[in-house]
Amino acid sequence: MEDKSLGIVETKNFTFAEPPNEFELESGEKLGPITVAFETYGELNKEKSNAILITHAFSGDAHAAGYHEGDKKPGWWNSMIGPGKAFDTDKYYVICSNVLGGCSGTTGPSSINPETGKPYGLDFPLISINDMVNVQNKLLESLNIEKLLTVTGGSMGGMQALSWLAKHPNKIKSTIIIASAIKHSPQQIAFDEVGRVSIISDPEWNQGDYYGKEHPARGLALARMVGHITYMSDKSMMEKFGRRIRNVGERHKFNTGFEIENYLHYRGSSFVERFDANSYLYITKAIDCYDASEGKNLSEILHGVKAKVMVLAFKSDWLYPKYQSKEIVKACKVAGIDTTSCEIESTYGHDAFLLEIKEETQLVKHFLEKVVQAD
Amino acid sequence: MEDKSLGIVETKNFTFAEPPNEFELESGEKLGPITVAFETYGELNKEKSNAILITHAFSGDAHAAGYHEGDKKPGWWNSMIGPGKAFDTDKYYVICSNVLGGCSGTTGPSSINPETGKPYGLDFPLISINDMVNVQNKLLESLNIEKLLTVTGGSMGGMQALSWLAKHPNKIKSTIIIASAIKHSPQQIAFDEVGRVSIISDPEWNQGDYYGKEHPARGLALARMVGHITYMSDKSMMEKFGRRIRNVGERHKFNTGFEIENYLHYRGSSFVERFDANSYLYITKAIDCYDASEGKNLSEILHGVKAKVMVLAFKSDWLYPKYQSKEIVKACKVAGIDTTSCEIESTYGHDAFLLEIKEETQLVKHFLEKVVQAD
Repeated sequence: MEDKSLGIVETKNFTFAEPPNEFELESGEKLGPITVAFETYGELNKEKSNAILITHAFSGDAHAAGYHEGDKKPGWWNSMIGPGKAFDTDKYYVICSNVLGGCSGTTGPSSINPETGKPYGLDFPLISINDMVNVQNKLLESLNIEKLLTVTGGSMGGMQALSWLAKHPNKIKSTIIIASAIKHSPQQIAFDEVGRVSIISDPEWNQGDYYGKEHPARGLALARMVGHITYMSDKSMMEKFGRRIRNVGERHKFNTGFEIENYLHYRGSSFVERFDANSYLYITKAIDCYDASEGKNLSEILHGVKAKVMVLAFKSDWLYPKYQSKEIVKACKVAGIDTTSCEIESTYGHDAFLLEIKEETQLVKHFLEKVVQAD
Repeated sequence: MEDKSLGIVETKNFTFAEPPNEFELESGEKLGPITVAFETYGELNKEKSNAILITHAFSGDAHAAGYHEGDKKPGWWNSMIGPGKAFDTDKYYVICSNVLGGCSGTTGPSSINPETGKPYGLDFPLISINDMVNVQNKLLESLNIEKLLTVTGGSMGGMQALSWLAKHPNKIKSTIIIASAIKHSPQQIAFDEVGRVSIISDPEWNQGDYYGKEHPARGLALARMVGHITYMSDKSMMEKFGRRIRNVGERHKFNTGFEIENYLHYRGSSFVERFDANSYLYITKAIDCYDASEGKNLSEILHGVKAKVMVLAFKSDWLYPKYQSKEIVKACKVAGIDTTSCEIESTYGHDAFLLEIKEETQLVKHFLEKVVQAD
């Protein structure tokens, strides 16, 4: 039970880029209207200098903290956001929005295509991490926020934070990039491709045209099972499940009921209830194609940037291994950016950024104090 | 081009357990007749003291070395087996057989069930690693071999070698256990389960009854794609593919053509041509359920064993990490077994046992000399 929760919160909507003034994507394609689902916690101060943008990971959403009416579970980063917490809502105005291409309120492939009156499906254009950030920028403009105190996120959220640093450095005072990378390695791409093939191989996927019909639930669940293996560590699985058996019924002849198997099936099937298969395809593709260095040295791109940077990595994270965080740190330092970093001990693997709250909180608090004081 | 190849070799067959004298499995179920596909290289000496059994990994077969008539590619461990090589066929009589449950000549789920005249499919009984070894034991008896100079294999082959040590210690003078484990960790089980679910989710799988019809090719290919990620290392993928693009045609909107994606698709589709989906299910299940320690300490089980042991691990192998090899070494040493071990530097990941030939050869040669001299 959280002792210092935000209580009940609500998701809001912001819509822009009404035709004929559509939003231009990096690819040159145009999209509109775009609705952004977002939540805010705390109050914006008079100087509008206390705004923090939280950028979510692949399967996250705008509901980062507090409770929705009737829900038993709080937002995905509730342990980090709230009164007295790392992102202290007594001091800061915290914003989180669902990414472009998502399926939790922001326009994505499951949204209605105004041209056809039906869900976009594969008519939705390919999007990029920079597009997600440009949409966030529109949201901030609508909130009259000219400069963020910080922008922060883990995993794909870290890529968005890095995109803010590389593409909009004058709009942020700092960034905290957690368990992330300049670009995906072939191993990371490989795991994402397996997830995509899993969905596309499901006959129910039907070239992305499944809305109102049977969804590709088996393919999406399988993709999530693979994902979950990569989010944990060998050690955390050993601690949590070992080789314990808990037989929960005969799925098939090969069901020996190892707890880890049951856990993966559970995570797979519960994911299907909240996530759209096409969003899985669009977002993982955006992640795989992201390269903050644009084929150059990231340090060249970051040259002259004044924002402060903190980079956090976790020791047992093998999906976004620490060498990838070190590459970000090095590029920032070579670019002359005021950069701090920390490798946090953890057995949780990639999920650690959601779970290693104690040290993460201290590191974030000290960093934010430094950023505020630097004014 | 191999300079010291065995030349043309042939696969032979041995059949036993004709009804009513069926073979009893660990589970108590009976199976027969059982045909074993095997190959031999070199000559058995008069004393019958120079026999070496090679046990293959999950997707291997009896064709470990030399060339089949008309083939351009040699057997899967040709670099280790032949005149002057690690397993020197000028000195040793080398045997390799396809495992029980396999699909390359030895009785498995795709074999004809004598009771129905049709392929077994899911009527094939669940099998274990110990069953595979017991079948190998029958083959050796038919070849009049009472004691092996050594038994060796990597990955699942290492589990079979360990089974020989634990269950038939008086029938081996030594064993070389490579890149293997006493039992699978939950992470290893998790990856196998993902492969199984991939096959079972393919509508063509049809409860295992697909022989003579469309095979579950998409599910099997996807399972293999996941497998291949785990056989390589982050570093070897980076060295081999990086983020290079080589667009080989539009598979779908999300095909950006990263080379690693194309490689995985190629490995997936070529696997389908040579492997049976039901064998995938039966064999991975046997691996996941194997526990050489039988829930106790392996050292208790190995107490009093006279055979010598060598354990080899590879630094970048994250599927069978080196701590698992260390657990085998420790159990052997605590049991008082003459044990040597080596961790070989390599970036190849789990595949290293097939690729790091130079050091592996030296280690094997020195070990076998020691075993021979100990007579």
